[in-house]
Amino acid sequence: MSYRPLTETTAAAFLADIPAVAERLGGEANDWSVQEVGDGNLNLVFLVTGPQGGVAAKQALPYVRLVGESWPLPLSRAYYERLALADQARLSPERVPALIHHDDVMALTVMEYLTPHRTLRGALVEGLRYPLLAEHMAEFLADTLFFTSDLAVPAVEKKARIAAYLGNTAMCRITEDLIFDEPYFDAPMNHHTPGLDHVVATLRADIPLLLSAQALKARFLAAPEALLHGDLHTGSIMVTAQDSRAIDPEFAFYGPIGFDVGMLLANLWMAHFAQSGQRPGVEDGWLLAQAEALWAGFAERFAGHWRNHAPDGEGGALHALSRSDGVLRDAAIDAWRAATWSDSLGFAGVEIIRRILGLAHVADFETIADEALRADCEKRALLFARELLVDRQNFPNAAAISQRIAQGTAA
Amino acid sequence: MSYRPLTETTAAAFLADIPAVAERLGGEANDWSVQEVGDGNLNLVFLVTGPQGGVAAKQALPYVRLVGESWPLPLSRAYYERLALADQARLSPERVPALIHHDDVMALTVMEYLTPHRTLRGALVEGLRYPLLAEHMAEFLADTLFFTSDLAVPAVEKKARIAAYLGNTAMCRITEDLIFDEPYFDAPMNHHTPGLDHVVATLRADIPLLLSAQALKARFLAAPEALLHGDLHTGSIMVTAQDSRAIDPEFAFYGPIGFDVGMLLANLWMAHFAQSGQRPGVEDGWLLAQAEALWAGFAERFAGHWRNHAPDGEGGALHALSRSDGVLRDAAIDAWRAATWSDSLGFAGVEIIRRILGLAHVADFETIADEALRADCEKRALLFARELLVDRQNFPNAAAISQRIAQGTAA
Repeated sequence: MSYRPLTETTAAAFLADIPAVAERLGGEANDWSVQEVGDGNLNLVFLVTGPQGGVAAKQALPYVRLVGESWPLPLSRAYYERLALADQARLSPERVPALIHHDDVMALTVMEYLTPHRTLRGALVEGLRYPLLAEHMAEFLADTLFFTSDLAVPAVEKKARIAAYLGNTAMCRITEDLIFDEPYFDAPMNHHTPGLDHVVATLRADIPLLLSAQALKARFLAAPEALLHGDLHTGSIMVTAQDSRAIDPEFAFYGPIGFDVGMLLANLWMAHFAQSGQRPGVEDGWLLAQAEALWAGFAERFAGHWRNHAPDGEGGALHALSRSDGVLRDAAIDAWRAATWSDSLGFAGVEIIRRILGLAHVADFETIADEALRADCEKRALLFARELLVDRQNFPNAAAISQRIAQGTAA
Repeated sequence: MSYRPLTETTAAAFLADIPAVAERLGGEANDWSVQEVGDGNLNLVFLVTGPQGGVAAKQALPYVRLVGESWPLPLSRAYYERLALADQARLSPERVPALIHHDDVMALTVMEYLTPHRTLRGALVEGLRYPLLAEHMAEFLADTLFFTSDLAVPAVEKKARIAAYLGNTAMCRITEDLIFDEPYFDAPMNHHTPGLDHVVATLRADIPLLLSAQALKARFLAAPEALLHGDLHTGSIMVTAQDSRAIDPEFAFYGPIGFDVGMLLANLWMAHFAQSGQRPGVEDGWLLAQAEALWAGFAERFAGHWRNHAPDGEGGALHALSRSDGVLRDAAIDAWRAATWSDSLGFAGVEIIRRILGLAHVADFETIADEALRADCEKRALLFARELLVDRQNFPNAAAISQRIAQGTAA
């Protein structure tokens, strides 16, 4: 059997041959309803429901769906996605969909159907709030990042895991190009709101900014600190009032911890910047407070794992930093927090810039119909992002960020 | 045929069956002279000469020769050594011995017999000087490090090369333990000159020092910037008045560029610190000047490769930093130089400390018979090394280091 893309017509018959799937859906294939909903830019996603339950079946296409067959993309990304889903399910089972079945030849992954979940980005655009979101995502980040890092894993095992993901080069290449390079140059697929021409020209001539973006790219290329989700924006998070799940880890690889943290912070901050365009006069500090809570919760939980994981000094490759005797461990935690915060701010900066100047924009800004209003929101976000890249030492903590954003200038 | 260690008696007959070796030696196996000379701590090395020429045959043992069969070490290191020799020969053919034959089952590598070369460390202990040394080693470092970095190699190819070396974990583990961890704790195999007890106790209680050493270990574990030699001290360099070659790359892996550079700088600086114990009254600044010339030559040649490699902006993963238009490239070179210098100083610091407090010491100090004199030289080196770890921002360039060492205190 070779690869073939499923359709709403063929999906049920294919899935009926998979016992774990048939059992979960109940009844017969004829009883199932199948809806292809896409997942954004890259894949087919079939939501399948039967008498007893539902599944989400995600199938990779051999090209980028957003662009078309002219942009080929290897099916192997489905393999890395289910590898990452399995690792994440082991480390943070409550924060990811359960993996039900995978088929590497068909580039197909069948997962738990998350319902009544919706994507966080869409919900934030509507002004909805999720009191448990920051806590849940802090948990996902701390649990997946700490327990795949040199603080928790011996070097031999860590290097084997790095190697297991090193082949996911096509997905990393997308990030390398679209996040770190193209927004800073006049690349063909870039686009931006007309009113931004002047600020765009200024940013693309800003050598310290370009230098900082490239320094972050160098870290993205060669800093395998932990297993990253790799694409943890608000469109990769499914929420209800009680639950939050990270989905779509097809960009997973071993990279710098600040990349995952910074991307999520950036998307919360962008949601805030967009508020004054979406519902003028009603914006408040809720989203800024969520970003603060996310960072605080993440850093505290990561530090807690560090203190509790291997107090006898064995465990990870950096075991000398785990010993509970002496003050080295606490000094190391402080140093880690400062370095990871700085890294996260930098990666947040490139994420904001690419979402406004690059290929893939976000609904937060795109749904602001008034172009002048949208350009104003985006310009404020861009100038903030520039500070994250070149002046991030001005922001010692998340409260300083909230103050800067609320006041419109650096403290 | 399975692995068996060769002996002076069996080596000639084994090598006679290898056409490339037999041809180089000339005559018959009976005519060849075989001498097993070791290579320091780990392996068998047979120097074999015949009527027409010679070869050096290096065979790994399944344990650490220095310690014995109680410390097993996998034969796979011979595989990584010949992999690295092949990569280095492609990038810097004049600075490594030519590879003649390899046998992965026998863990055997047959190389050009370097003659009349001797090890640099032994020569420096005798006070000999090599006017071309700094230039040659700057060439080796710049050529092997630049052309295996993200500045020269596309990401897909770079990641494949990282993966090719990721299995060399046993050799990396030796470095992780002996360089970054054990010297800072009361590890069983540590030893030091008696007069150093007080300074050793002070250093092992120095939290900023321990923190810096562990931060460097974290970089050693997870910063695959370029293909490192991995053990580039003065005992891994063979010299004549006209030639210099780097040998023994069995510790090779993708790591931080400053590790190779810093280790060699550290060994030149240690040779200087040892002078006053070896030949009191005759020390001068020659070794300090060589360290300065090594750094300057390396940084300049690396920058030259950067400017000339791909001025059209293609080539390595960091291609945006190679474009000859605009000022980004030169700003990036300056930033790279500052960051790599700082990294190199840190790695130099841990190398000095481990050579005085850890398991594997160096002849530079060990040949100073007078214990009090040796302790004095070592203490001065240790205090200098501490500054490299915790106050390296005080040394903006190599001249500042020479001044610090010559004056005995920070500038």
